[in-house]
Amino acid sequence: MTKYGIVDTTFSRVDMGRFAYEIIRKEDPDGEILRYTVPGIKDMPVGATKLFEQGCEGVITLGWVGKTKLDKYSYLATSIGLIQAQLLAKRHIMDVTIHEDEVEESQLFALAKDRASKHAANLVKLVRDGGRSLSSMAGQGLRQGYNNAGQILGED
Amino acid sequence: MTKYGIVDTTFSRVDMGRFAYEIIRKEDPDGEILRYTVPGIKDMPVGATKLFEQGCEGVITLGWVGKTKLDKYSYLATSIGLIQAQLLAKRHIMDVTIHEDEVEESQLFALAKDRASKHAANLVKLVRDGGRSLSSMAGQGLRQGYNNAGQILGED
Amino acid sequence: MTKYGIVDTTFSRVDMGRFAYEIIRKEDPDGEILRYTVPGIKDMPVGATKLFEQGCEGVITLGWVGKTKLDKYSYLATSIGLIQAQLLAKRHIMDVTIHEDEVEESQLFALAKDRASKHAANLVKLVRDGGRSLSSMAGQGLRQGYNNAGQILGED
Amino acid sequence: MTKYGIVDTTFSRVDMGRFAYEIIRKEDPDGEILRYTVPGIKDMPVGATKLFEQGCEGVITLGWVGKTKLDKYSYLATSIGLIQAQLLAKRHIMDVTIHEDEVEESQLFALAKDRASKHAANLVKLVRDGGRSLSSMAGQGLRQGYNNAGQILGED
Amino acid sequence: MTKYGIVDTTFSRVDMGRFAYEIIRKEDPDGEILRYTVPGIKDMPVGATKLFEQGCEGVITLGWVGKTKLDKYSYLATSIGLIQAQLLAKRHIMDVTIHEDEVEESQLFALAKDRASKHAANLVKLVRDGGRSLSSMAGQGLRQGYNNAGQILGED
Repeated sequence: MTKYGIVDTTFSRVDMGRFAYEIIRKEDPDGEILRYTVPGIKDMPVGATKLFEQGCEGVITLGWVGKTKLDKYSYLATSIGLIQAQLLAKRHIMDVTIHEDEVEESQLFALAKDRASKHAANLVKLVRDGGRSLSSMAGQGLRQGYNNAGQILGED
Repeated sequence: MTKYGIVDTTFSRVDMGRFAYEIIRKEDPDGEILRYTVPGIKDMPVGATKLFEQGCEGVITLGWVGKTKLDKYSYLATSIGLIQAQLLAKRHIMDVTIHEDEVEESQLFALAKDRASKHAANLVKLVRDGGRSLSSMAGQGLRQGYNNAGQILGED
Repeated sequence: MTKYGIVDTTFSRVDMGRFAYEIIRKEDPDGEILRYTVPGIKDMPVGATKLFEQGCEGVITLGWVGKTKLDKYSYLATSIGLIQAQLLAKRHIMDVTIHEDEVEESQLFALAKDRASKHAANLVKLVRDGGRSLSSMAGQGLRQGYNNAGQILGED
Repeated sequence: MTKYGIVDTTFSRVDMGRFAYEIIRKEDPDGEILRYTVPGIKDMPVGATKLFEQGCEGVITLGWVGKTKLDKYSYLATSIGLIQAQLLAKRHIMDVTIHEDEVEESQLFALAKDRASKHAANLVKLVRDGGRSLSSMAGQGLRQGYNNAGQILGED
Repeated sequence: MTKYGIVDTTFSRVDMGRFAYEIIRKEDPDGEILRYTVPGIKDMPVGATKLFEQGCEGVITLGWVGKTKLDKYSYLATSIGLIQAQLLAKRHIMDVTIHEDEVEESQLFALAKDRASKHAANLVKLVRDGGRSLSSMAGQGLRQGYNNAGQILGED
């Protein structure tokens, strides 16, 4: 039985943890799911680390980033920290981020739901099925939250 | 008995340590509270680390950031360092930051008091009650120092 | 027999993993090649680390970066993480990056193929033949994906 | 007897090491002081680390940063590195930085002298007297190199 | 007998490794010199680490950085990585960087030669003679590749 972790925030304006939970439950009905809620994105790296300590083999973090330059610096620091947490644990963190200014407010809910759901499915694939499980989709220009960009072909 | 740490600075223009102390004392009357004062924000990561060494199970840092581009770079370096300090200790640092230019000077006191107080309460919840204690507020758009942004709902 | 790793992404719009595979196979017919596919660039550092754990002596990562400022911050975080992964493993990661906005879309395929192929050859040289194998080309202004810039000579 | 370290650079245009030495000597006449001189700021983190290895309980670094965007990137990398060096040693580095463009050239000497001196005094306090020694000045808006900004008071 | 390391790149447009070699050889005729050539700057931190593993007591890296914003981000990531490599090894890396846009192309050769040569001499001094060997030049405003900025004196 695989143990998965979800780290979400009280800062987020969409309850992405629910979508992540539903997809992980659907994709791996036998999996165990732990949830950890922190105030904001900079608290997520240690939150994920605590879930690794509790035996999670992979974690999804659900971050929400504001509009200002300083919010973007916080995003950068968090991204560096999430990668470092993965290197220390040698386990995956699927790092979902919604930037409040990437679409209009009326579209944020759909964006957050789609991105959280698709990365939750990615997490199950990578953790349970291993690093070859996504290889048939490599280089396909897949996107989470937007339409897929598509593959660019050319002459070999 | 839980041991909490407060790291504040002589650079800060508001004595946020006092607010953090009062809230932690109120939220957990039995807790022990250690205080550590450093000159500026870049000294906070090692300050928090020293409090972890003295047995604190969680720390709140109370940073004040000036207006210039270089102050913002210092903020970025500090943010990266605070996350790293958490990963090394596997314990939380609630990282309160006031940017001197985010509101008018007349509003800085109220902003600093509100943010320090709310994050001090978050610290007690996370450290004493664990990672599920904030989950009922996940995705609610909570803010510290400002009005809450509120949750965005949509069709499932 | 040398073991090489390839980390590619589903985000990439060109299947660079195929080019890397072909070149490594051609340059070292006896080598073993492992492939690991992740969603996006920020997942590559831990992907490479997992391949190191499986015995790879060197890894090539094949990243694709979007056009926005935030994509560039993700690139920066990933670059820091890939270097850190190398320092922890004391092994090379040839870090191929295609920025979607560095050439026109019609030229992206050729750019990606050239850069992935040349760095795959670099990987085999460095891993199998050691750190002197590229020394005859030091300071020559070599480029991957573009024409070589060429060496600048001067009076000694 | 406390052992203090001073790391300065040949890049700096003011001999700040002398001021730091004089203040440490004055504040702690029994202390031992080691000095380490490196070319530029990016060499300071390992310089401080070497002084920690030689038994220094705290170090002051005296950095000088040029005017260009690249100098500021070097400042950022150095700041991250100095924090990391502190976390690895669990000891303080008082990180004095003079930006060549923060005041007019005629004022740089006075700025550098004041900042180096005040942080040298901070170092002695923190290292010898511990983390409560600065607490009476917390939240006072103290500045090094400039006039103090002062405390902002408000209604509780 | 001291062992020195040189890490250079095939990306560089000037063969700085040759200058570094000549100066180290001249300054320390008995020293042993190892060379390691990598494709670009982001490969230098692990290159230096490999030379530390082979017994080098200090390393000089010879980086060349392009003109674009992304090249500068790569410079930043590399700088962070080189500092981290030093902290892990507790040994110096003299980090020579030429930015292709800091002078006109006709002056790049002289710039690169001067900077590589002066830092190679710094490396020998620091590694063989220790951290006091440059102290007589502290605060003198020394520059590598440009005219020295000179010391600023003032009233004590």
